[in-house]
Amino acid sequence: MERELREQPRVLAESAADYRLQASQALAAAEPSMVLLVARGSSDNAALYLRYLIEVRLGLPVVLAAPSVLTVYGREVRYPPCVAIGISQSGEAPDVAAVLARAREQGHRTLAVTNEPDSLVGAAAQYVLDLATGEERSVAATKTYTASLLAAYQIARALGADLPEPPVLDDERIETALALADRHVEAVREAELVFTLGRGYGLATAYEAALKLMECARQVAKPYSSADFEHGPKALLDKRSLVVTFSTPPASVLSSRAKVLAVGCGSAVPEHAPILDAPFAQWLALSLGRRLGLDPDAPAGLRKVTRTL
Amino acid sequence: MERELREQPRVLAESAADYRLQASQALAAAEPSMVLLVARGSSDNAALYLRYLIEVRLGLPVVLAAPSVLTVYGREVRYPPCVAIGISQSGEAPDVAAVLARAREQGHRTLAVTNEPDSLVGAAAQYVLDLATGEERSVAATKTYTASLLAAYQIARALGADLPEPPVLDDERIETALALADRHVEAVREAELVFTLGRGYGLATAYEAALKLMECARQVAKPYSSADFEHGPKALLDKRSLVVTFSTPPASVLSSRAKVLAVGCGSAVPEHAPILDAPFAQWLALSLGRRLGLDPDAPAGLRKVTRTL
Repeated sequence: MERELREQPRVLAESAADYRLQASQALAAAEPSMVLLVARGSSDNAALYLRYLIEVRLGLPVVLAAPSVLTVYGREVRYPPCVAIGISQSGEAPDVAAVLARAREQGHRTLAVTNEPDSLVGAAAQYVLDLATGEERSVAATKTYTASLLAAYQIARALGADLPEPPVLDDERIETALALADRHVEAVREAELVFTLGRGYGLATAYEAALKLMECARQVAKPYSSADFEHGPKALLDKRSLVVTFSTPPASVLSSRAKVLAVGCGSAVPEHAPILDAPFAQWLALSLGRRLGLDPDAPAGLRKVTRTL
Repeated sequence: MERELREQPRVLAESAADYRLQASQALAAAEPSMVLLVARGSSDNAALYLRYLIEVRLGLPVVLAAPSVLTVYGREVRYPPCVAIGISQSGEAPDVAAVLARAREQGHRTLAVTNEPDSLVGAAAQYVLDLATGEERSVAATKTYTASLLAAYQIARALGADLPEPPVLDDERIETALALADRHVEAVREAELVFTLGRGYGLATAYEAALKLMECARQVAKPYSSADFEHGPKALLDKRSLVVTFSTPPASVLSSRAKVLAVGCGSAVPEHAPILDAPFAQWLALSLGRRLGLDPDAPAGLRKVTRTL
């Protein structure tokens, strides 16, 4: 996991232009009236990022598919002319493939974002954006996650979003993020309950941070939209809680007795933050797992590829 | 909270026909190509139920709005011809009102589902479905939650879903649900970590159960779609975990060392389950809160009306 985590600057630098090209080819002349996204696990967090990019920067409505409508209830949703994008790092998610295949049958443009083009999900879609990060062996996704975020960013640009070049996650930035995470890992260890909060673009990082903490360190962490957090969950805050925020911390959190860790790895463009903040979240989980004597490369009870219908 | 919880059979029995009528009037001749839902807190769980009803039974795509696109980023999403439905028990959710008002300006049919028609949210929409449950004083929503579910059910029927009459939550059913919850409250108390799982229709109950446990009993509970749970969070399961399922328990949960409580309060129609299972979840939280010496009527740090933008 550490090796793959540290490969991220190279992978992203090598891929940015290629993702842009692949996205442009897949989406040429597409004029969707909405976008359908389908994904699971950490890919779903990348999809959440893409949702905000598309709604905020393009004004197109985005549906995050509930695959069970098709795979459990056997019912078909009729979408207006849309682009359907499935994200699956392994390409082996049967529910993601099923939703893409059905959208394709309905005549919509379909695009699979995956690290394995010759996969179930890759075969289901008309177009493939190959993440091409090289093999990812750690169960906890790192480079394929940030690669998916970068792909999402380039997809939004290919659809017409007026966004600057993607952020450069260089070695210096990643070292800074890792050092920052190491400074705070003990606070996470001491916390009885960890909340990760974000809003808008920051929400994806909040979800991904919580998922990584569970996978790598068996640390209970609850992610929330800062707004939803106000509607109930904040009742749990006390001095044994730690709140990690990836967007502006809500006033109620700042005035609570909880410890607050406001994370921002120096992004000048709001849309860049999820890519730059991800390594912090990954290292926090990895570092905590190690301190607890766990093996983050092989979390108990998890496999690299999870198949759900 | 107990009084309002026990009022649910009367409230639902008195309201079913009226909600149907109000929904039919609001939605007459509406031919949307999609549905936009916007809500917060437990109303958002009712919206999740409505999402599945509409996608599964009507085949219409549903967007669960991310209000921050409008309220934080100031951007407008262009929806195809749609019906926009906001759910806010108190009617005082500024973000819900803002999304409804913008949809109305764009010429879409707008409907507010609320217990307070003379409210911000009520005023923002063209039509109001008045839940008319009488005042709800407990911070934790009970009767307004099941009333919102019933309203959702009748809205789906008014939009054309071929569904039978809504379920009858009579006093006998509610007593059975409460007795069932009392039998299991000690298992929740003993658990180090509680997961609530559901899929499709059952997902709303999983989210609502977790929210109630946090609000009323400060019990950490994490809700998941059964499918998403497989993609990482199941790593946390051990013999100190309790999994409460409101849909078929996943095989990985059954084969784990976690305690499993599979809840189903005797619904013959899958679409009826959330309404019949809600009192179980409510009582479980109330009963646990009492055993812990807490005051579920006035959870620390929460107010009845939460305003987020």
